[in-house]
Amino acid sequence: MDAAVMYGPGDVRVEKREEPRIVEPTDAIVRLSATCICGSDLWPYRGFDALDWPAAMGHEYVGIVEDVGSDVTSVRPGQFVVGSFFASDNTCEICRAGYQSSCVHRVGVAGAQAEYLRVPLADGTLVATPGIPDDDLVPSLLAASDVLGTGWFGALAAEVGPGKTAAVVGDGAVGLLGILSAKQLGAERIIAMSRHEPRQQLAREYGATDIVEERGDEGVERIKELTDGLGAHSVIEAVGTQESMLQAIRATRPGGHVGYVGVAHGVELPGQELFFSHTHLHGGPAPVRNYLPELIELIWNRTIDPGRVFDLELPLREAATGYQAMDQRRAIKVLLRP
Amino acid sequence: MDAAVMYGPGDVRVEKREEPRIVEPTDAIVRLSATCICGSDLWPYRGFDALDWPAAMGHEYVGIVEDVGSDVTSVRPGQFVVGSFFASDNTCEICRAGYQSSCVHRVGVAGAQAEYLRVPLADGTLVATPGIPDDDLVPSLLAASDVLGTGWFGALAAEVGPGKTAAVVGDGAVGLLGILSAKQLGAERIIAMSRHEPRQQLAREYGATDIVEERGDEGVERIKELTDGLGAHSVIEAVGTQESMLQAIRATRPGGHVGYVGVAHGVELPGQELFFSHTHLHGGPAPVRNYLPELIELIWNRTIDPGRVFDLELPLREAATGYQAMDQRRAIKVLLRP
Repeated sequence: MDAAVMYGPGDVRVEKREEPRIVEPTDAIVRLSATCICGSDLWPYRGFDALDWPAAMGHEYVGIVEDVGSDVTSVRPGQFVVGSFFASDNTCEICRAGYQSSCVHRVGVAGAQAEYLRVPLADGTLVATPGIPDDDLVPSLLAASDVLGTGWFGALAAEVGPGKTAAVVGDGAVGLLGILSAKQLGAERIIAMSRHEPRQQLAREYGATDIVEERGDEGVERIKELTDGLGAHSVIEAVGTQESMLQAIRATRPGGHVGYVGVAHGVELPGQELFFSHTHLHGGPAPVRNYLPELIELIWNRTIDPGRVFDLELPLREAATGYQAMDQRRAIKVLLRP
Repeated sequence: MDAAVMYGPGDVRVEKREEPRIVEPTDAIVRLSATCICGSDLWPYRGFDALDWPAAMGHEYVGIVEDVGSDVTSVRPGQFVVGSFFASDNTCEICRAGYQSSCVHRVGVAGAQAEYLRVPLADGTLVATPGIPDDDLVPSLLAASDVLGTGWFGALAAEVGPGKTAAVVGDGAVGLLGILSAKQLGAERIIAMSRHEPRQQLAREYGATDIVEERGDEGVERIKELTDGLGAHSVIEAVGTQESMLQAIRATRPGGHVGYVGVAHGVELPGQELFFSHTHLHGGPAPVRNYLPELIELIWNRTIDPGRVFDLELPLREAATGYQAMDQRRAIKVLLRP
């Protein structure tokens, strides 16, 4: 089968790999309908993370169940499923508390930029849709697999809610879907921090009421101006750099909440500033599995349309072009068709 | 009047200072019944913080209202009051959200190790007791002014509650009262991290069910052993060093809560570790004013006895001896009688 493999920074190739088979009785094999390139895939692509090269890429996926192991009971061949990027048993105490991405048996999913994927712990990882979706729903369901689930977790971690002002640091797919999530969760006002016109437009369509183009301390000042000098109640951080984390913390009012979902790179938080900021800090890898049933329902009912973050669609064999487009910020997010 | 003044690290003198008078119409003058030395006073005493020398010390206080400014309506001369270490208006949006120690008009209180104290924003800062307290209640009411309020905030920030396991890093007065608070808030199991026998004993009397003597990663391992390998649900951090913060974060299970109330000194939190820890982090200077009515009631009804953290009582004029005793850990907390 075709699969995208990263050989080193900037070097993605689509090559023939053996089709995966059931290994454990809890596995499922999924024939992928769509997959995509994640903002986090750019960290190794840009040389900020070292992988075990060559590395099979991809952790976002939807598709048709092809085969299941003997212990799998909740999904069956022929069903359309959405998966999460950490496989989880969904039964341990941590999963039951809503943190499937820290499941005591978690397994990172990799190799989803391919035609087929072996998903471990299928019962605790995959969620079947009510039927085979219409084609136009596929991008939105694929978004639920990571970027929507991550934006949703960011909004929940930031305790977005009715009557509150939310701000979003980062205008990538996760930031944009953080806006959609904040809107869906009832935020009264949503401030998008973005300086890219096409992204600003999608931000507004997803529910942003204000746009702040400034960054760093200037951006923080603008947010304070918009919030009676106090800062936002809820700030979603969707980048993962030192600058973006400080921007998020400083833009939050005392007692407010920062939900941080950008994978932290080179971040060292100054303890004393954090102490006197009086903010709440919560985040990490989103427990997507926890939200999939609700998110699938919202998509199925056409209440939300997160798939609009995919502004470039390519055949899987052109994955390298997709990586380039995202690296150069010519595309927000690239959908790949196996 | 007599007042304790720090002239530099290790140099505390009691000297004559002018009695304070009403300056603003929102002020009150309190004749102090008792005051004390705070663990945070040891930071400058040990040379870790520079103050504007010579510095009038003290921010914990109870006493009788002597005089009030023309705008003060909620307390009157003759009443016994408990104060908080940040003066607050208790009416702004931040106060109303429960964060009086980040009030938009907050003023740090200093100079309480003295016979009289001017308290700004008296209506929003002081709380009168139901009557003049019995002598034996005075230490507990004094504790409410900071260390109990701070331990209480730590427990709330760590979301301690029924059915949960709490752990407490630090066995100073705040840590010990964090244990008392966790017990009062219904924690099922309370693990005290302490290696000092007399403090362990008070910890047990306040509600600790387990004692862990190990520190650092060894201490974390012990806590994991006690919690099915997962870590505590709620960890109260009551020290403020890099080691204690990492110990607290690492002892918390994914999805659990760290409530940190030790004033951070030299703390730099590693962003990526924090990200993957999946913990909630909240803390800062305790909004004591928010909790005073409830804490005073619990003390007045003799439900709790936080005053037991005072294991040395001295006349104010011997403040220097009190600082030495706390610095050398010969006393948990020193009460000073003006």
